[in-house]
Amino acid sequence: MTDNDWTEDAKNASPDGEFVRDTTYIQDRVSPEVSEKTPQDNGTTLWPMEAGRYRLMGARACPWAHRSIITRRLMGLEDTISLALAGPTHDVRSWRFDLDPDGKDPVTGIHRLQEAYFNRFPDYERGITVPALVEEESVEVVSNDYNWIVRDFITQWTQFHREGAPDLYPAAHQDEIEELNERIFHDINNGVYRCGFAGSQDAYDKAYQRLWEALDWVEERLGQQRYMVGNHLTETDIRLYVTLIRFDPVYYSHFKCSRHKLAEMPNIRGYMQELFQIPGFGDTTDFQEIKEHYYIVQTDINPTQVVPVGPDMDWLMEDHDRGRFGGQPFAAGTTLPGPLPAGEHLKNPEDFQLELPAVKPV
Amino acid sequence: MTDNDWTEDAKNASPDGEFVRDTTYIQDRVSPEVSEKTPQDNGTTLWPMEAGRYRLMGARACPWAHRSIITRRLMGLEDTISLALAGPTHDVRSWRFDLDPDGKDPVTGIHRLQEAYFNRFPDYERGITVPALVEEESVEVVSNDYNWIVRDFITQWTQFHREGAPDLYPAAHQDEIEELNERIFHDINNGVYRCGFAGSQDAYDKAYQRLWEALDWVEERLGQQRYMVGNHLTETDIRLYVTLIRFDPVYYSHFKCSRHKLAEMPNIRGYMQELFQIPGFGDTTDFQEIKEHYYIVQTDINPTQVVPVGPDMDWLMEDHDRGRFGGQPFAAGTTLPGPLPAGEHLKNPEDFQLELPAVKPV
Repeated sequence: MTDNDWTEDAKNASPDGEFVRDTTYIQDRVSPEVSEKTPQDNGTTLWPMEAGRYRLMGARACPWAHRSIITRRLMGLEDTISLALAGPTHDVRSWRFDLDPDGKDPVTGIHRLQEAYFNRFPDYERGITVPALVEEESVEVVSNDYNWIVRDFITQWTQFHREGAPDLYPAAHQDEIEELNERIFHDINNGVYRCGFAGSQDAYDKAYQRLWEALDWVEERLGQQRYMVGNHLTETDIRLYVTLIRFDPVYYSHFKCSRHKLAEMPNIRGYMQELFQIPGFGDTTDFQEIKEHYYIVQTDINPTQVVPVGPDMDWLMEDHDRGRFGGQPFAAGTTLPGPLPAGEHLKNPEDFQLELPAVKPV
Repeated sequence: MTDNDWTEDAKNASPDGEFVRDTTYIQDRVSPEVSEKTPQDNGTTLWPMEAGRYRLMGARACPWAHRSIITRRLMGLEDTISLALAGPTHDVRSWRFDLDPDGKDPVTGIHRLQEAYFNRFPDYERGITVPALVEEESVEVVSNDYNWIVRDFITQWTQFHREGAPDLYPAAHQDEIEELNERIFHDINNGVYRCGFAGSQDAYDKAYQRLWEALDWVEERLGQQRYMVGNHLTETDIRLYVTLIRFDPVYYSHFKCSRHKLAEMPNIRGYMQELFQIPGFGDTTDFQEIKEHYYIVQTDINPTQVVPVGPDMDWLMEDHDRGRFGGQPFAAGTTLPGPLPAGEHLKNPEDFQLELPAVKPV
């Protein structure tokens, strides 16, 4: 076991220097179909669905965790599934709860996320990643599969959804969502990492070209429709947002994705503005923690560990022009999430974020 | 003597982590007042001014050298003072002529610029820097003082100026030029390095603030007048250009100067467009060599040595709006430089640069 096995974003290099993400995750799930822990034939376990039983271990910094934090809020699961937030600068051993008093998650009492992994799998050898769903009482990890955590928030935890919660995975668009999710994962979500962790100039050049082909496709698509799929926000928009919002502050410079800033892409710019201003998106985006994570942790890329002050992102709060397509973020009958729960306010809100409706300074 | 003594941009750190540039240079000068090498009381030597006697050792990559390359071309000194161009990626020992056949400067026969320094000062211990003025026959360095090399091109080599050469240091504006040069040097030319080579977060934060105060001052000034001083281009504009043109491709990301791209600053953007399109500026700007220099040489900042493909700079060739101030780049009676001399075409012109009037593909 090497040090890298403990970290988020473990770098796996193929022989030609390309970055390859480890996509094997813990496959247990929480299910409304079982009333007690139920082992499955495939070796995984189904865990019973209960309010107050599980804790979402996230980190503001991490885009994969950010998806689940946004979705939890849009679906109104804040009172059902509690939220722990690790600090942005994990060390080689694990994400740490160093933002909490005494460096300890107040609910589970653990200092490092790895403890919840080892409680369940004493010999766990893969990356200690966020998001992770953890059973509060046993402090055992249930799942770190960010795709299933989000999908289950949308499609399984329905009995706990807030009134007026949106349908982020509508039956009529599921094939399209799957198709787009697939491309966005490979070419964009992971595509930026492929640029940043390229082990050679040639691997980088290819990754850059692939990334920008995909971003040009998004820019064109968003020049024809308000959201990525259908007439309302879907899971696909959440998946895209978490990468887009980190692009100008981090991926542009740190991962050398710098053909253009996304602020320079008119349709993507307006789309980002609209999403950022919707409760659940901008009020869960902590730019300072995002920058600290990449610039301090990834010393292979930024050995000085100096964190950039810029860029200026206040354009996110400007009026956008997405109304030109008609439609609205959510279908009729959907309401917006309310204010942020106590304790979940951003630690480092930018001045312009204080104008977001749900955000109050801590 | 450490390795760093041999390199351009040697990093000198003050106790608080701030970057401090070594500003001591070889003080010899070429003078029309002497007919043979004449030692001075201060220990320096005056060298006689003759066409064909000296060679300007530059590098496309280096902003300090770029000033002299632009000035030589604006003043029409191409036939009087020859030009050698070192490659962008010097090693710890010296700038190298690795773009020339056999890695050898065809006129002086040297492989490394340090040879010309050692021919004159066998124990030379400071940085081996470009630009350097070298006597062709003896292959001895005469000066590496980039301020004086440029100023002398403008004010001393007058008998060799082309017909219609501009006055870049007009008597009526000399005090203003000196004042602006001083601020631009400290806060901008060197200010970007102070950000990039900051040895601590605190030193970086201060450097970033100082840089952007100065860039905001430039943006405001260029919102009121077409050029930095008076109604025509002066030496001050050349000094500013060499940093501005490297800002979006390098300093923004590599040195973390990233509040805004200069393409986002409307007045600076238009000013850069106008200068870039004037013979002598855009036709001496090699973005590929510029990027390779910083991203490959400065491994303390970019250990991967991957060179970014971006950013897209073709906005430099768009129409600008500087005509709104009236005036013109040069005073009446001044003409534009002609085509680039043979052998001085850019090795890596961007597609959009091929539209510049003086540029022909090699």
